[in-house]
Amino acid sequence: MRRELAVVPASGGMDSCVTVALAAREYSLALLHLNYGQRTETRELQAFNDIADFCQAEHRLVISMEHLASIGGSSLTDRSIPVSLAALRSKGIPTSYVPFRNANSLSAAVSWAEVPEASAVSIGAAEEDSSGYPDCRREFYRAFQEVVRVGTKPTSGITILTPVIGMQKDEIVRTGIALGAPLHLSWSCYQREDIGRAICDSCALRLRGFQRAGVEDPVQYEQRPLYT
Amino acid sequence: MRRELAVVPASGGMDSCVTVALAAREYSLALLHLNYGQRTETRELQAFNDIADFCQAEHRLVISMEHLASIGGSSLTDRSIPVSLAALRSKGIPTSYVPFRNANSLSAAVSWAEVPEASAVSIGAAEEDSSGYPDCRREFYRAFQEVVRVGTKPTSGITILTPVIGMQKDEIVRTGIALGAPLHLSWSCYQREDIGRAICDSCALRLRGFQRAGVEDPVQYEQRPLYT
Repeated sequence: MRRELAVVPASGGMDSCVTVALAAREYSLALLHLNYGQRTETRELQAFNDIADFCQAEHRLVISMEHLASIGGSSLTDRSIPVSLAALRSKGIPTSYVPFRNANSLSAAVSWAEVPEASAVSIGAAEEDSSGYPDCRREFYRAFQEVVRVGTKPTSGITILTPVIGMQKDEIVRTGIALGAPLHLSWSCYQREDIGRAICDSCALRLRGFQRAGVEDPVQYEQRPLYT
Repeated sequence: MRRELAVVPASGGMDSCVTVALAAREYSLALLHLNYGQRTETRELQAFNDIADFCQAEHRLVISMEHLASIGGSSLTDRSIPVSLAALRSKGIPTSYVPFRNANSLSAAVSWAEVPEASAVSIGAAEEDSSGYPDCRREFYRAFQEVVRVGTKPTSGITILTPVIGMQKDEIVRTGIALGAPLHLSWSCYQREDIGRAICDSCALRLRGFQRAGVEDPVQYEQRPLYT
């Protein structure tokens, strides 16, 4: 029997890498990557394609959302705003927050999902370790599911899945390893494309996750501060 | 006192033209146009710019959302799907439905609104005369408001406004005329860019609106069938 299709937005980072691996257990994969003028786009796109190849994704689509760059308001897209350094316990919203990015990402994913009648969109948002992004929280996805229910064709029936939303990064690492997810192909650094600097929020969360899981992160870094 | 800012997604059609005029009474205007590879994009963009000039919009942004074209699934973006002819009483979803387009549009509008701290996004969706698009209904915008509330910075406080959602097209025409909205600069035909064919859904709804309002539509058409 032909498997159902899931659209998975994938940045190429660790969380989406594991989300792809989780989706691959049940669905044929339609992987979606957004280019929105982020600093490390070239490296992220490479990670996306490497992961798509590894997982033998049936479909892939790379979307340009350069309006998120022209709008600015984030250190990921505006070179004049510095990337927040690791602040793992901060409750504020870091400069890397791209305004409402995940709504843009999900909207594109649902548009794509409606055409081939995919049954799910699975996104790798993680709430507890999410650096404080408002669009990484459970309530955002719950609300978005309702938008999808009322805003698509009645026959579409697309479910928004957030399989890692309740996981800490160490659990994401352990899950990825258990599934054989290609974590060695993922990329998380917000600052560099050749080697992780290990000092941005994203690197710090990732490294701490590997450290807490007791596993060495296969990605190369300039340094490996102890974040546990 | 400086007026608050509203982002208004504007296709260049009649409904968004009147929505711009309504917003201009209270807000400074940030007008947003989406190019998504639709058949009549050149003409729509001209209408958008003409309306923005006429209303002296403070900001304007034209966004390319070509993924909606590459995704397809609509007669507006896929030349192999014929544009639905006027079917004013049909309850089905016409071929011109662009999957989840208004969620993409609203997401971009909210991203833009967050950066300069706009207080509203006002969109010209009309429910009753909407050709049956699921993303033109009140419940879609109510659900999206909740996504905005939980998915943006707590300080953003962006309100989604749908000032014409309950209006029939004739009321939109009358409102536009009362406000001096530049209806002569708007463009609605889904098929042609030089002169309205007057046989697509969009032309038929527009013409019927003018006819019911007892006003001559200032736009040129090949023919003017009686749609009342």
